[in-house]
Amino acid sequence: SNDVKEYENYFGMTLLDRRSDKRTDSKWLSKKQSHPATVYILFSNLSPLVTLGGGRESSQQPEVKLCRLCHKDVEQFMNQTEECTLIFLGVDLQFDMNLMAACNGRVQQEDEDGLVAWFALSVDSASAEKFKQKHEDCYFLHPPMPALLQLPEKEAGVIAQARSVLAWHQRYRFCPTCGSATKTEEGGYKKTCLKEGCPSLQGVHNTSYPRVDPVVIMQVIHPDGNHCLLGRQRRFPPGMFTCLAGFVEAGETIENAVRREVEEEAGVKVAHVQYISCQPWPMPSSLMIGCLAVAVSTEIKVDKNEIEDARWFTREQVVEVLIKGNQRSFFVPPSRAIAHQLMKHWIGMNANL
Amino acid sequence: SNDVKEYENYFGMTLLDRRSDKRTDSKWLSKKQSHPATVYILFSNLSPLVTLGGGRESSQQPEVKLCRLCHKDVEQFMNQTEECTLIFLGVDLQFDMNLMAACNGRVQQEDEDGLVAWFALSVDSASAEKFKQKHEDCYFLHPPMPALLQLPEKEAGVIAQARSVLAWHQRYRFCPTCGSATKTEEGGYKKTCLKEGCPSLQGVHNTSYPRVDPVVIMQVIHPDGNHCLLGRQRRFPPGMFTCLAGFVEAGETIENAVRREVEEEAGVKVAHVQYISCQPWPMPSSLMIGCLAVAVSTEIKVDKNEIEDARWFTREQVVEVLIKGNQRSFFVPPSRAIAHQLMKHWIGMNANL
Ligand SMILES: Nc1ncnc2c1ncn2[C@@H]1O[C@H](COP(=O)(O)O)[C@@H](O)[C@H]1O
Ligand SMILES: Nc1ncnc2c1ncn2[C@@H]1O[C@H](COP(=O)(O)O)[C@@H](O)[C@H]1O
Repeated sequence: SNDVKEYENYFGMTLLDRRSDKRTDSKWLSKKQSHPATVYILFSNLSPLVTLGGGRESSQQPEVKLCRLCHKDVEQFMNQTEECTLIFLGVDLQFDMNLMAACNGRVQQEDEDGLVAWFALSVDSASAEKFKQKHEDCYFLHPPMPALLQLPEKEAGVIAQARSVLAWHQRYRFCPTCGSATKTEEGGYKKTCLKEGCPSLQGVHNTSYPRVDPVVIMQVIHPDGNHCLLGRQRRFPPGMFTCLAGFVEAGETIENAVRREVEEEAGVKVAHVQYISCQPWPMPSSLMIGCLAVAVSTEIKVDKNEIEDARWFTREQVVEVLIKGNQRSFFVPPSRAIAHQLMKHWIGMNANL
Repeated sequence: SNDVKEYENYFGMTLLDRRSDKRTDSKWLSKKQSHPATVYILFSNLSPLVTLGGGRESSQQPEVKLCRLCHKDVEQFMNQTEECTLIFLGVDLQFDMNLMAACNGRVQQEDEDGLVAWFALSVDSASAEKFKQKHEDCYFLHPPMPALLQLPEKEAGVIAQARSVLAWHQRYRFCPTCGSATKTEEGGYKKTCLKEGCPSLQGVHNTSYPRVDPVVIMQVIHPDGNHCLLGRQRRFPPGMFTCLAGFVEAGETIENAVRREVEEEAGVKVAHVQYISCQPWPMPSSLMIGCLAVAVSTEIKVDKNEIEDARWFTREQVVEVLIKGNQRSFFVPPSRAIAHQLMKHWIGMNANL
């Protein structure tokens, strides 16, 4: 069922309620910024500050976790110049200060709403260096992949949100309509052109809001129902194959984007397309829309400009790699990537195991 | 089935094969630009040039259709300055020059590939005015809504593509990363910063590509299964109600965006979410992702900043408006809007008509 799929949605689950209504409440935001219970997560060049965790249950992989800082830890960076970006991420879904206080028999101050706010703070390299020297057990997770796939599931959702919005700030510094400087508003979710008379200031325009790029990713099923089409890009590690994918174009449906991409990349024609699930992918800000697609042709013609190889794999081959972890012939992305989940969905759906 | 839903997808069906492989083939593009069989559609300030059609079957509404121009009609505008934007839209799926020639017993030239290319050309207001004076039966469709919903179905897909890409050109003239001027490449699908050393030139960045904004639009079903939640914005015509909708945020799944928006706008909690179908919406460049959503709470608390009103409507009320066209109490968007299709899907799904 849908719920099971979502339960496993890495980058799609979060600790936070975004509370977008608070983004325009600058008084509330500024009070929360200096509140001692507020949680800060730190970024340098889109890499989050982490520390080693206890190790995941039923896994040998070391687990990293976000460093949760407080206002005291970061205030030295916050009065700096443009190099520092602050994003309001939301409030903790589980943690309530009033509740905590009541349990401890203390009385809350009157103007307390009990909400624990989270912020992402991006600092320049010099500040990042200084910070690491003071906090020796912390480091900035770099390169992002595959390291970002090793976070606790709910922290991954916080990172997906923060990293995408910070990437937008990094790339969209100037008004695309007139080239002028911009100012940041609404807790980091809006950029407004500073030039009087700029057309971007008349009406609502997407130039002012964070960008999300829809991408289709599809498990393509052979007409015989027992093979699927997987491909690889030149930059992949040797032996890795995965679902085909591509950006949805302007004026295109999800279903037609699937058909176009499969035909462009592998020369295979697809008819029926079915949405399965999606995954935010903060590299830097995609929404991966996962589908099953049924092929109506079988001959593969690889477009070498787009991918390096594409092949039909048997159901048994996919089962072997996915379930038994046999990686002799080829391997696929880890279970926290939607491609893996789409393959799993396919073999689970009507497999004769 | 999925195919039925797609068949009715206004803005989602097209006459064209995008042939994105040709976008980098500047020799081919320039040859096609001056080819006599090439089709041009003209835009002024994002409004397409149209003419009155014959009137749609089984409808009293007048139908407008795109003016299909040829190179001779438009060449005077094409050597102009920055004010003129040219987009390669694709090649005609049905029309093949070789086939035509063969039928007429003529011989094609050797370097002919038989493909009929389509371009969108956007011109400034002065040129638009001049053009209208020469072609009295043509006019620029304005304002876009609801006029853009009156095109022949397959031309609507061409408009969706062209208008979205042109809107991107209009709003994204300068490099958002450094504020410099840009040049247009790849048939109008890429903008490259002209400043040497700009970070946007290192690696691939979404700043260079047309923007598509994913939006969720949802038919929210009451826990009793026999009511649905419809709302209205202040700017709607009086009496119109429709599905709630909102932009998918960075780092968010489709399903969670549905839950967040319904709770934000109407205070209603949603659990299960199911994707139904999508629709490109070129105002200016959205991808409407249509879902059914099952509410688990019923009390409505309207956020007046976002919408003006939201109410539970009975299945009978929706059937009446949708099927019988009874518009006494309220009305809904026309059948070519995905909101209408979502409502229809719901009443068709398990109605006791
Ligand atoms: N990409 C976007 N384009 C326009 N508005 C956006 C975007 N992302 C978020 N928004 C917000 O959505 C509001 C407009 O929504 P709507 O009234 O549904 O068009 C704006 O006032 C913004 O606060
Ligand atoms: N929003 C976008 N961001 C990055 N690349 C895009 C975008 N839209 C289209 N593209 C194209 O997709 C290619 C990268 O795709 P990929 O290798 O899947 O990351 C680029 O070289 C572009 O040609």
